[in-house]
Order: sequence, then C-alpha cells, then structure tokens
Amino acid sequence: MLNKQVLLASRPAGTVTPDNFRIAEAPLPEPGEGEVLVKNEWLSLDPYMRGRMNDAKSYAPSVDVGALMVGQTVGEVVESRHPGFRRGDKVLTSLGWQLFGVAKGKELMLVDASRVPASYYLGVLGMPGITAWFGLFEIGKPKPGDTVVVSAASGAVGSVVGQLAKQEGCRVVGIAGGRAKCDYVVRELGFDACVDYKAGRLLEDLRAACPKGIDVDFENVGGEVLDTVLRAMNPFSRIVVCGLIAEYDATEPYGYRMLRAILVNRIRMQGMIVFDWKDRYGEALADLSARIAAGKLRYKESIVEGLENAPRGLMALLSGGNFGKQLVKLG
Amino acid sequence: MLNKQVLLASRPAGTVTPDNFRIAEAPLPEPGEGEVLVKNEWLSLDPYMRGRMNDAKSYAPSVDVGALMVGQTVGEVVESRHPGFRRGDKVLTSLGWQLFGVAKGKELMLVDASRVPASYYLGVLGMPGITAWFGLFEIGKPKPGDTVVVSAASGAVGSVVGQLAKQEGCRVVGIAGGRAKCDYVVRELGFDACVDYKAGRLLEDLRAACPKGIDVDFENVGGEVLDTVLRAMNPFSRIVVCGLIAEYDATEPYGYRMLRAILVNRIRMQGMIVFDWKDRYGEALADLSARIAAGKLRYKESIVEGLENAPRGLMALLSGGNFGKQLVKLG
Repeated sequence: MLNKQVLLASRPAGTVTPDNFRIAEAPLPEPGEGEVLVKNEWLSLDPYMRGRMNDAKSYAPSVDVGALMVGQTVGEVVESRHPGFRRGDKVLTSLGWQLFGVAKGKELMLVDASRVPASYYLGVLGMPGITAWFGLFEIGKPKPGDTVVVSAASGAVGSVVGQLAKQEGCRVVGIAGGRAKCDYVVRELGFDACVDYKAGRLLEDLRAACPKGIDVDFENVGGEVLDTVLRAMNPFSRIVVCGLIAEYDATEPYGYRMLRAILVNRIRMQGMIVFDWKDRYGEALADLSARIAAGKLRYKESIVEGLENAPRGLMALLSGGNFGKQLVKLG
Repeated sequence: MLNKQVLLASRPAGTVTPDNFRIAEAPLPEPGEGEVLVKNEWLSLDPYMRGRMNDAKSYAPSVDVGALMVGQTVGEVVESRHPGFRRGDKVLTSLGWQLFGVAKGKELMLVDASRVPASYYLGVLGMPGITAWFGLFEIGKPKPGDTVVVSAASGAVGSVVGQLAKQEGCRVVGIAGGRAKCDYVVRELGFDACVDYKAGRLLEDLRAACPKGIDVDFENVGGEVLDTVLRAMNPFSRIVVCGLIAEYDATEPYGYRMLRAILVNRIRMQGMIVFDWKDRYGEALADLSARIAAGKLRYKESIVEGLENAPRGLMALLSGGNFGKQLVKLG
C-alpha cells in the first residue's frame, strides 16, 4: 500500500492556484519504537496555511518548496509502538496533507469520538474553537449590552465567537459574504444581525446594524472590512486581530486609512495567536464541551472529498467560497 | 485698554497657513460674581490644536470659524471676584489665544511659581508631562531591559517619555528630525540613541539602534514613521498611540501597510488621550515634581514672542520646525 501526499510545488504569487500544489505517492511509513502509524480521516483547512506557503518570516516557519503541506488531522491508529495508543484509537495529529503518517506519542492527542463527531476536534473543539474562546474572552472582554462585530461570521472561528458573545448578553452582528451565509448566521446561529459585505454598502449597513456603535470587533478578515469597521468603533472599544484573510492572497499589503480612529477613540487593537494560551487549552475545551453538550453551540462543516481536492478546498476557503468549517474527508 | 485675540478665520485645507487666522481686538472683559480676570503670560501650542481647526468629529468639539482659538495659558490674576483667587496669583487656564480672559473659579488652577517657572505648568508639569507619564506607565508598561522607541523625541511629550523610560532601566531610542535635535536627545536628555528620520534610512537606522527589536513604541508622529516602526516591533510589544502629527496636516489619511505585524507579533496598539486620567493627574504631578526637584528631568522650551506670532509658532510645531515645548510669550 502506498501513501499519498500533497506537496508545495511552488510559492503563490498572490492568489493560490492549483499549480502551487503537487500530488505525490510515497512508501507507507513505518513506526519506530515509541511511534504510531495513523490513517488520517479528516484534514483541517485553515487560513493560516496561506502564510506557510510564503517565504516571509512569520510566527511559524514556512513550508519548503517540495515539502509536505502542514496541517492538523484527525485519524485512526492503525499500528502502535507506543504504550499510550492502541489500534482503533482516534487521535488529533499535526501530520499534514497526507493519507498516512507516523508520529511520536507526544505529538498525538487522543480524542473521544463517542459523544461528538471526531471531526469536531478540528473545529469547534479544536484550534478554531479555542481561538474564538481566548480571543473573545481574554482580549475582546465583552460586557453585557456591548455590541460585538464578528467578520467571517459563518466560519469556524467566527461562528463560535458570535454564539459565545450572544450568551454573554451582547448584541452580536456578523459580517459575511452573500445572502445565504448571512441568513445562516442570523437564523441558525442566532446573531442579532449580519451584514453582507458583498452588497457594497458595508459602512451604511454596519451603522444600521450597530445603532450604538461597536464595542468589540473580532477581526478575521482585515483589509477594507477592518478599515470600515474602524469608522464605527466606540470610544474605549477593542479589536481582536485574529486573522487578516483579505490580505493573505494580496501581492501588496492593504493600506489602512482609518488608524486615526485608534487615537481619537482610544481603541485597543491587539493581535493574537492561539498557541500563546497553549498551557490553558483545557479551560477553553471544558467550557466549549459543556456548551455543546447543552445544545448551545451550533456548528457547520464544509466538506470536500478526497485528498486530491484539498487544494481546491483551501482556495475556496481563502476566497470565501466555502461555508462553515472547511474539512477534507480522507477516509 | 483693549483685549487682543487670535480667531480661526478659515479651516485649513491640508497644511495650516497664516490665512487661517485673524487677529482681532475686543473690549477688555469684565469678571462677574465668582469670576476672575486673568492676564495671560504664556500660551501653550500643542499638536491637538490642529484637530480643533477641522470640522470633523473628534473627542472634543471643533473651533467654529470666527471663534477664538482654544488653548491653555498660564497667567496672572488682575481682578478677582472669587474668594479663592487674589490679584497677583499665577493660574493655569483654558482661556485660549488672547491677552486677557475671564474665567470662573473652577476653570482655573493655582500654580506655584516659586520653585519652577510658571511656564512649566504648560509642559513638563502640565498636559504634555502628564500625557507622557500615563501613556508610558499605564499603556506602554515598560520593563527593565526593554527597548523603548519615542518619536518626536525632543518634543514636550517625547522628551519626558524617554527620560522616564531611561529611569525605568530601559534602552531608549528617540526619533527626531535633524542632527541638532538628535544630538540634544542623546547628549542632554540621556537617550541611548536617536534616529534622524530626515536622513532617509529610517528602517536601517532604527534596526541598528534597536538590536534587540522594539518592545514599546511611544508614538507621537504616525504616518511613515509608525509604519516603519511596526516592522521592528517584537512579539508581545506595545504601541502607545498618543499623537499622529504627520497626519494632521495631510489632505488624505496615510495608508498603513504594516498592520499585519500586529497579528504576527501579537502587538497591542492602544490610543490614549490624557483627560481619560483626569481624576488621577495628581499622581503624575507628584512624581514629575519630585523628579524635577531631584534634577532628573531636563526640559527645553521653544518660545515665540507676542500673540500675533502664535500662528507662526503653531505652523512650526506642526512641521517639526520647533525644538522643545512650544510656547508663546505674551507678557
């Protein structure tokens, strides 16, 4: 049996294209002492992957050209030479864009797939959910009655942020692309309103949806969306800079013209990366699990089938063409 | 005897010009019951005044066209109908750009001109000094060993920020315009280094002066200076947005292209306005006074003579043509 992998074939010049990837076959890896062979079942696609395709210095190293694309998966143990794992166990891994992989025991986390689908550990109970939890509560610090705006509101992070903020007693306004996503955000996720940035009246629509201004902006998009949101921020408001997906594919960085609002309105704008809280993931997971068990967190997955379609899935994610947490089903 | 005033004649379209002001004579005002007539001796010129000349919504109302230019002064009581003030008392006022003015008792603050010059209450012991103190300690939060960058380093706020940071055990690097200001900042104020932004190698010079990167940026300038500083900021660093003087005269807002650094390096960028701490001014003043008494704070004034030269003084301040705290001597 052969392994199949997606490699970085070339660095994107702006928008990611299929040419930037190459599918390769490789021998099935063999686990050494203390290692585990995992058959990946779900691959998570996330905006941060775009950054890893660049050569630029960032908070994590780039993927080398010709190397395996990085990413988290959920899979099943097929062979274990580690006492903590048995054949059939479901595990969360960082094995990347491939069907099989070998990892050391400490690189794997057992997941309990008896009460929630295993794929949830890549989304609402994984990095996106934990990102939403720490970003909102530790940086956004919403108070009851605050107006909280969330961009990419139907996405893996945004959908959790909005539901958490709603449960804190906030007015929650999403920003999403297109009528279908906005309807979902309001009707299914329970946001108070959702502004369609594709409708071309972002500032007016945002002001109408936020009659008392904006107290917290949870920013996943950046670019013109953030520059417009800045115009409606209240004095002493907070901006959680979690993602700037609008910039990732751009060849030139966006020129933000509304920074003066930070001075005039004494805004606190702060960047975040989830692993800054890695010693505290348990706090977030316990709370998120409890909310899921109580039926309080809705969650949507956007699934492409087959490893060879992973590049297409990432391109959809980066252009806003997906809808919900983006996954690749490998099993 | 007549009063003399400087009125806003027209709103500037970009750079402030002499045409935007008009000198007018007016009858000497008479104090009513509970009021005091003050002869202004020193008028403070500050960057915020540029904002008041616009029509745009900001944290304080605009000056109407035809109205008196706003500003703080230090003056002497010439007639008092308030029990708390006597003829000859020195007072801090908000009476604006005029030779005489009438104020209610609660709008005046007695100053002690026996140990420091009265003009200090417009600078190092006034709004600029208090701004430096709260901005640095409450938002910048420098730790010993941190590298602190201060733009407009020879100015009323920047010179205090840098000296306070130095006394906290930080490496302190100024940014100023021209060799003379940079020499002053290093030799007189004791900064570790000062980068001349007019030399045209801001990023390279900044990197050389900050070999360990920047932990705190106290931003008085904005525009290209801030956009360049963003490129050298460390993970978990802080930016105190105190002023954006580079933008005040611009007809188009500057387009900041390095905002992605906020995400990648988890920077906290926060705007400030000194009156947010008005209930706590006493804390700052007590500490600043003690440092002055101990000879630990150097301070430089840039003085223009005569009310009719106040517009010229403001224009110099806004273009970086002044050197030190900008004052108009009226007495």
